[in-house]
Amino acid sequence: MKCSKCNMDAVAHQPYSGAHLCRKHLIEDVERKVKKDIRQLQMVEKNDSIAVALSGGKDSVVLLYLLHKLFSKRPDITLFAVTIDEGISGYREHTIEIAQKVTDMLGIQLHVISMKGELGKSLDEVAAEERDKGACSFCGVFRKKLLNMTARKLGATKLAVGHNLDDEAQTAFLNVLRGDVGRMSRMHKKQQGLVYRIKPLRSVPEKEVALYAILQNLPVDFSECPYAHEAMRGEVRDIINSIEVKHPGTKYSILRGSDETARLLNIAQQDVTLSVCSVCGEPTAAEVCQSCRLLGQKQDMVDFVKG
Amino acid sequence: MKCSKCNMDAVAHQPYSGAHLCRKHLIEDVERKVKKDIRQLQMVEKNDSIAVALSGGKDSVVLLYLLHKLFSKRPDITLFAVTIDEGISGYREHTIEIAQKVTDMLGIQLHVISMKGELGKSLDEVAAEERDKGACSFCGVFRKKLLNMTARKLGATKLAVGHNLDDEAQTAFLNVLRGDVGRMSRMHKKQQGLVYRIKPLRSVPEKEVALYAILQNLPVDFSECPYAHEAMRGEVRDIINSIEVKHPGTKYSILRGSDETARLLNIAQQDVTLSVCSVCGEPTAAEVCQSCRLLGQKQDMVDFVKG
Repeated sequence: MKCSKCNMDAVAHQPYSGAHLCRKHLIEDVERKVKKDIRQLQMVEKNDSIAVALSGGKDSVVLLYLLHKLFSKRPDITLFAVTIDEGISGYREHTIEIAQKVTDMLGIQLHVISMKGELGKSLDEVAAEERDKGACSFCGVFRKKLLNMTARKLGATKLAVGHNLDDEAQTAFLNVLRGDVGRMSRMHKKQQGLVYRIKPLRSVPEKEVALYAILQNLPVDFSECPYAHEAMRGEVRDIINSIEVKHPGTKYSILRGSDETARLLNIAQQDVTLSVCSVCGEPTAAEVCQSCRLLGQKQDMVDFVKG
Repeated sequence: MKCSKCNMDAVAHQPYSGAHLCRKHLIEDVERKVKKDIRQLQMVEKNDSIAVALSGGKDSVVLLYLLHKLFSKRPDITLFAVTIDEGISGYREHTIEIAQKVTDMLGIQLHVISMKGELGKSLDEVAAEERDKGACSFCGVFRKKLLNMTARKLGATKLAVGHNLDDEAQTAFLNVLRGDVGRMSRMHKKQQGLVYRIKPLRSVPEKEVALYAILQNLPVDFSECPYAHEAMRGEVRDIINSIEVKHPGTKYSILRGSDETARLLNIAQQDVTLSVCSVCGEPTAAEVCQSCRLLGQKQDMVDFVKG
């Protein structure tokens, strides 16, 4: 099959656009989508200092590479990377190596933050004690907190995360299945104490992110985290993928509808004012933040956090 | 298995509530849900004249039966039934018989409106000419228009339709897949020229509506329309049903979230003022209503409608 834009061999097919694309034009198309979203959603502003959440997986490596490609010539924009080392034996060591490799390659500063160092226990230790709950619910809360804390302490004005189109469509879908209107409206909200999160890859399908990484020869790790993923998200991923096959473009429809809904919900709702967690001092809508509530089930960890 | 509320044999299991219910308590539970929604959403008000859309299928027969049971003693409330005869040979004749039977039984006036009589052609004739498009897209538009027109001309203040929980969850889901925020927010809107639609069965799962019809010995027809249903809705029905099995209560979560979203979207959005269709004079947001646009592809039908 030939590229729809030139005479080269196609490396990718986009059922949602009807196009077949060669290496050059697929790369161009991914970059066009990212640039368009950054511009339209004003993700990057003058004098921004952007903390990039870098796990070493394909999404975050492509994210860092693209932000570097787009903004490294801008003297007013600072980029640095933050990797959370959750302490997942046999998995995280390798992705941290990749994070070091890619930041070395691009000349970007990397901060590796250890969950055990910050919260007193590694995820492996938490998982061993919480066999019934699964590690993912803890990991998500702890990782988010540490990323925000680190970005804020290092003076970041933005926190870039590697969520792609599939992730965003799945999240929108999960919110609908759960009837979670609060989460729907919080998707783009600026909140005090929380470094504003930007998602430059949100319009790029997961497949194209992976292909971009391969075509650009980026050092990435395609292995999966050994802990099972959130069960319902896995189901939703399969559901959306099977709908997308029959109705190409559905992921984009979900994303656009979700954006428009969030925009209107934000008009209708009053801003939630965040206060600070009485245990750790980090921003929260409640008296004690979710991270400390989870940790609080283990008094030793609360004592640790309290100092 | 015994009923969770008494010592009788259970006839139904509700995985979302954990209850097993006998005949008496299932009937009570369905009626409780309907009464609660009618009260909370103020579906029926003093001096209402309610047109009930009666196809003769299980949902509309249960709807009419329940509204009669709840309101026939109220001197200020009028109930009458409207059946649209689309002209679907071998199917509709039978359901019209049921509509006559059930309205005779309850002593409720029935108005049968013929699509051919009103619009010039039966659905069978339209379907024969529109093999590529399928009959359902025409039928939905035409039926909705005729129901509204008839209800309004007969002085109805409300138009009751038999949508159950499954229908509502599917519609909310389809709106999300299509990113159709307009439709999300229109779900409960009062609009000039449109008789306000109420859905008293919206919190009753389809299975329980069917069971209620059987347990109350109502004359219903469980046969399906010979025209294929909207393809994507069929897929969505299967998807939601399979999620509901694994996560009981999901249909309710979808409905509650969709209600809350619609409520907030209505706060955020300006009211759409409907004008009248320049062809038929019925309410529409466009210059020409969708029904006349579809009919317009057949000039003879437009001439017919124009007079």
